[in-house]
Amino acid sequence: MSRLGMLAELLPDDADGAIIISNENRRYFTDFVSSLGYLLVTRKDSYLFVDSRYSEAAQKQAENCTVIKFGKLSDDLCDIIKQNDLKNIMLESDAFTLTECAYIEDILDRAGAKAVKSGELNKRINTMRLYKTEDEIQKMHTAQMMTEKALTDTLKLIKEGVSERDIALELEFRMRKLGADGVSFDLIVLAGKKTSMPHGVPDNNRIKNGDFILFDIGADYRGYHSDMTRTYAFGNITAEQKRVYATVKQSQQNALDMVREGVKCGDVDNAARSYIYHAGYEGYFGHSTGHGVGLEIHEVPSVSPNSDFILRNGMVITVEPGIYLPDNFGVRIEDMVVLAKDNYINFASLSKELIIL
Amino acid sequence: MSRLGMLAELLPDDADGAIIISNENRRYFTDFVSSLGYLLVTRKDSYLFVDSRYSEAAQKQAENCTVIKFGKLSDDLCDIIKQNDLKNIMLESDAFTLTECAYIEDILDRAGAKAVKSGELNKRINTMRLYKTEDEIQKMHTAQMMTEKALTDTLKLIKEGVSERDIALELEFRMRKLGADGVSFDLIVLAGKKTSMPHGVPDNNRIKNGDFILFDIGADYRGYHSDMTRTYAFGNITAEQKRVYATVKQSQQNALDMVREGVKCGDVDNAARSYIYHAGYEGYFGHSTGHGVGLEIHEVPSVSPNSDFILRNGMVITVEPGIYLPDNFGVRIEDMVVLAKDNYINFASLSKELIIL
Repeated sequence: MSRLGMLAELLPDDADGAIIISNENRRYFTDFVSSLGYLLVTRKDSYLFVDSRYSEAAQKQAENCTVIKFGKLSDDLCDIIKQNDLKNIMLESDAFTLTECAYIEDILDRAGAKAVKSGELNKRINTMRLYKTEDEIQKMHTAQMMTEKALTDTLKLIKEGVSERDIALELEFRMRKLGADGVSFDLIVLAGKKTSMPHGVPDNNRIKNGDFILFDIGADYRGYHSDMTRTYAFGNITAEQKRVYATVKQSQQNALDMVREGVKCGDVDNAARSYIYHAGYEGYFGHSTGHGVGLEIHEVPSVSPNSDFILRNGMVITVEPGIYLPDNFGVRIEDMVVLAKDNYINFASLSKELIIL
Repeated sequence: MSRLGMLAELLPDDADGAIIISNENRRYFTDFVSSLGYLLVTRKDSYLFVDSRYSEAAQKQAENCTVIKFGKLSDDLCDIIKQNDLKNIMLESDAFTLTECAYIEDILDRAGAKAVKSGELNKRINTMRLYKTEDEIQKMHTAQMMTEKALTDTLKLIKEGVSERDIALELEFRMRKLGADGVSFDLIVLAGKKTSMPHGVPDNNRIKNGDFILFDIGADYRGYHSDMTRTYAFGNITAEQKRVYATVKQSQQNALDMVREGVKCGDVDNAARSYIYHAGYEGYFGHSTGHGVGLEIHEVPSVSPNSDFILRNGMVITVEPGIYLPDNFGVRIEDMVVLAKDNYINFASLSKELIIL
């Protein structure tokens, strides 16, 4: 069954249609990429409304829907709603702004229909998107390979005095040269004290002896993302740095060892967290252990404390515990994995042993 | 008066507060950059709610407001609304999604306040943002200089067989090496037949003799954008290509000659458009002549046919007519200008003469 067909089946009884406007979900359901468009899903048919810029390409590429090139959207959408006798149309609540909602509600009003503005539509779509197909996994694998190749090449350029910002720029340039459509997020390259900030931003801070260098990086390939963190040592590091590195490494392995179909996210989180806490670093691991990845870099589920969410084969999550000692240093190690068979397949292939550059 | 003070004065009589969540407007009013935050504006004071990631930096940098580090936003925001006895709070309708709106409305409800969801708040903010300060103009000037230097250097690398995509990537890399925080939009580099598509995307299409190469490019510097288009010839071009180039060049000059305080946007558009139409290219210039630029790449006003919007000193617009002959070639020439004194100051300094690479 097509994704659009499945969504039609997932519509609740009191709704007879849905309008999707986010780029990711339009792409997910039609396999067509555009920066603007309205996808109307009904129990019978689906319609993709695009403007003249996209109509020719959409006719050729958009799947399982009728493409309508709109002159005036309000008229064309109104007509189709009337023709299909739709009465209650769900809106994508995570994507519609108040302005866009008011605009669409005017059109629905003219067509004798009503907007359903609850979060139900996004909830159901997110559930569908949890289960990755072979094709989606292949794209994420390609994104991961581009990331690893770019990182491996960039590591050779690192020497004392190079700035975080220049390293991040080289990395992005190399990923895109390799064919990435972009980066998964603004690449995080941090050195020295700055590694203690989970959300630090690369700047002119320069590499020096004794630094950890933390790379939290990923590529976008055909809309799908990769996500990986590695922390390397530069020059002579202390016994404490080595101890923290080993603790994070074992903590991450413990969490990975938990990952399999049927396990709760909270238990995966706890496997990483309790090891870090018992090693004496309670209070220094403030974020969740991981998150889903796919068309967006952060998707459900959240691999966080006490989460009852149950993992299933086909889901992709990250496993990324860390220890952050303020004003001193931090270490994070992250892999992205897809649940399969009895446990998982790791997208990442780069070593997690402590590497001294 | 501070921008926040001015916004407080611009609140309509039936509102006593406003909540701003877009990154651009939060930055505009507080001069503080973050990826998440809630700015509550009242007639008396303003409050910036940020999480632990940003609280330290916000305390130091955010201007004209009280910074509140929220643990649970719902409690902290609720308290401040009650303390200030706010009853009707405008929401930024262009930024709030339905999901975010439902979340905030719950909080307002608990605080005994109501959300005003009309487009009025954004309208008033957009009007404020129309008038650029010296500091904003300086940033846009810096963005423009980075763009021009990167383009000048990249042009030297162009030879037969190089792909659009590789040129675009080199350009972006150079801009960022020069200190740009990013690009204004996905850079447009098109060659040959593809120049006939106003919204084409760079791909593996390779430069060959007789091509026009169109660059629609810009940088982001400290949140402010630049925007410029130049079309160059590569090798031997035809008499028709030269005629179209000359027509666009004169059309663009005609529009620039109209730009001064008090003139309607429709008249600027018409100056470009009528020249192109009279030269025999009616039907081959489908888009507007220009748009405002600032914290966003597309801002009000739209320099489009019949627009009654009246230009004032301090406003920044682009002037970018083009001729697009389907399946053949296209030419666009664009400058970004700020209205000043008796006419305007052009941010762009690169020649618009026909240059053969």
